[in-house]
Amino acid sequence: MDVSEAIRKRRSIRKYQARKVENDKIERVLEAGRLAPSAKNLQEWRFIVVRDDGRRRRLAEAAKGQTFVGEAPVVIAACATMTDYVMTCGQLTYPINLAIAVEHMVLQAVAEGLGTCWIGAFYEEEVKKVLNIPPEVRAVALLPLGYPDESPVSSPRKKMEEIIAFETWK
Amino acid sequence: MDVSEAIRKRRSIRKYQARKVENDKIERVLEAGRLAPSAKNLQEWRFIVVRDDGRRRRLAEAAKGQTFVGEAPVVIAACATMTDYVMTCGQLTYPINLAIAVEHMVLQAVAEGLGTCWIGAFYEEEVKKVLNIPPEVRAVALLPLGYPDESPVSSPRKKMEEIIAFETWK
Repeated sequence: MDVSEAIRKRRSIRKYQARKVENDKIERVLEAGRLAPSAKNLQEWRFIVVRDDGRRRRLAEAAKGQTFVGEAPVVIAACATMTDYVMTCGQLTYPINLAIAVEHMVLQAVAEGLGTCWIGAFYEEEVKKVLNIPPEVRAVALLPLGYPDESPVSSPRKKMEEIIAFETWK
Repeated sequence: MDVSEAIRKRRSIRKYQARKVENDKIERVLEAGRLAPSAKNLQEWRFIVVRDDGRRRRLAEAAKGQTFVGEAPVVIAACATMTDYVMTCGQLTYPINLAIAVEHMVLQAVAEGLGTCWIGAFYEEEVKKVLNIPPEVRAVALLPLGYPDESPVSSPRKKMEEIIAFETWK
């Protein structure tokens, strides 16, 4: 699927079919993340692929009871293994590097006919407990992955002229 | 171009042709960013498209003298307009939201035959001065955009087994 088509078709999916996701599809989604660029090529990421029923249910509870998180047959937890590197511009690398890698997965998932939903509404300490994540590691995002069981319309977007400027701020 | 092909072909380009980038290509790159998902649908981004020679040169100086930044015919400055929203997981939304949008642009650029390079090595205050960015706004990334004048090999990536775990951390 074309990049622009995947970008246009992508939706945040909050209802999933029970249908299992094929291993080769999961592998291509993970590979898309693996190939992401990262500042200083740090690749300070680790992705935990969760398929166990009970564990997914506990992740859904940690995600403030958003049950759809556990209904997806796969949940990927995106973790940052190095959390103190700051770029000259003043930004920490890890949230940006991880976001790039996870969005690669999101777009590859669309190309595979799969749905995802970025989840930031979760209690990090609960998630770390469920997945045995070491104290120094940050759990940055959860990404349910599965066949969509809904076709939501796109959230409204700002108009181009609201978000683009030419040459200077105004 | 296929999503997976764009992800595989993407490189950080540090040498650009002087050749002008067509407006319709720039528009599709910006549109890819506009359609990005964002936590709470905040879309707290503004992208400044810089084509002026002198201004690009000053951005290159602010980017610690990385001259190639100014040699690209277009530089996009990604700015965050709301910088205090924190998700339940403890992460600020803006670095993640902006990273997603910028990476959409990066992949669309590949599909257009264009090159980009994520730049985080810049003095933010200098960039803000060059582009008249208000004090409360953060300049998060610079993205030179143009026709590549090099074909670099990919930076080495960690192996899949180094970055993937199943069910729990170990």
